[in-house]
Amino acid sequence: MDNKVLFKLSYGMYIVSSKSGEKFSACIVNTVTQITAENKPKLIVAINKDNYTNSLVKESKKINISILSNKADMLEIGRFGFRSGRDNNKLEGTEYKIGKNNIPIITENIVAYMECDVIDIIDSGTHDLFVLEMQDGEFLDEALTPMTYEYYHSVIKGKTPPKASTYNKEKGE
Amino acid sequence: MDNKVLFKLSYGMYIVSSKSGEKFSACIVNTVTQITAENKPKLIVAINKDNYTNSLVKESKKINISILSNKADMLEIGRFGFRSGRDNNKLEGTEYKIGKNNIPIITENIVAYMECDVIDIIDSGTHDLFVLEMQDGEFLDEALTPMTYEYYHSVIKGKTPPKASTYNKEKGE
Repeated sequence: MDNKVLFKLSYGMYIVSSKSGEKFSACIVNTVTQITAENKPKLIVAINKDNYTNSLVKESKKINISILSNKADMLEIGRFGFRSGRDNNKLEGTEYKIGKNNIPIITENIVAYMECDVIDIIDSGTHDLFVLEMQDGEFLDEALTPMTYEYYHSVIKGKTPPKASTYNKEKGE
Repeated sequence: MDNKVLFKLSYGMYIVSSKSGEKFSACIVNTVTQITAENKPKLIVAINKDNYTNSLVKESKKINISILSNKADMLEIGRFGFRSGRDNNKLEGTEYKIGKNNIPIITENIVAYMECDVIDIIDSGTHDLFVLEMQDGEFLDEALTPMTYEYYHSVIKGKTPPKASTYNKEKGE
């Protein structure tokens, strides 16, 4: 079995944010997928259990998803992807707005966003799989190109953080 | 709420196949996502309940996933994506091999494949969300570029079949 075949799956890049009481966090994920189109669209997102954002999503049952564009750079990605919201105010120095669900939505270099409710949580080992129902969604700049995970690796030369579902422990990337 | 924001999510293109007894089918999906990296990798795939492949996956609890490359054309995609395995032998005229789990794996214009067991099924309206554990996986041609859903729409000019989780009923695409 060659686990490296999994690197050939295609993904986008997203900043997900959540808030519980006064606690806020956001992190980078590549696992957002639409799973049904009828009525209110449903999506899934997998988030590492060690991520502070994961615990806030579990508490609030709410999550906002910002679709990163190719305009985002390593500085922006690093701000959300490589440090914890436990110790850092991730909104500092970042453009954002407050969603209808009262949770900040990152708006810097973002194509569009979705506000979602969590309707189911499936334990999947290192990660929780959150099943979401979309409650709102708007474009911020429809002309921007969504960043793919492939673009992030090949053009921005981004590394895979150890908490990603696609992280390869043996290769360290 | 603007549901069109969902068109900005990024996906790959995959042929999934399954077999129950002598019944075989395969179909095109764009919803394959890795959700955990440790031990045996776990993935999810959403498949429309009206798809014949869906019922075979439910019966056999086994599914093989072939990662489509940019070399695939509309003819190959149409063979699997726009007609039912109920009425057609989808293996006819296609290159394939038999997996370790005894289920045919499509190999034509494919980067790599994974053989998976179904470990959980979540009803999500029009689609079932299958949680998978990867049992085997090999490259067929590592040099090929995986086809993205964006490439399929913009270069191959592919339509969204009505059974896709990303289908927009109002727009008819």
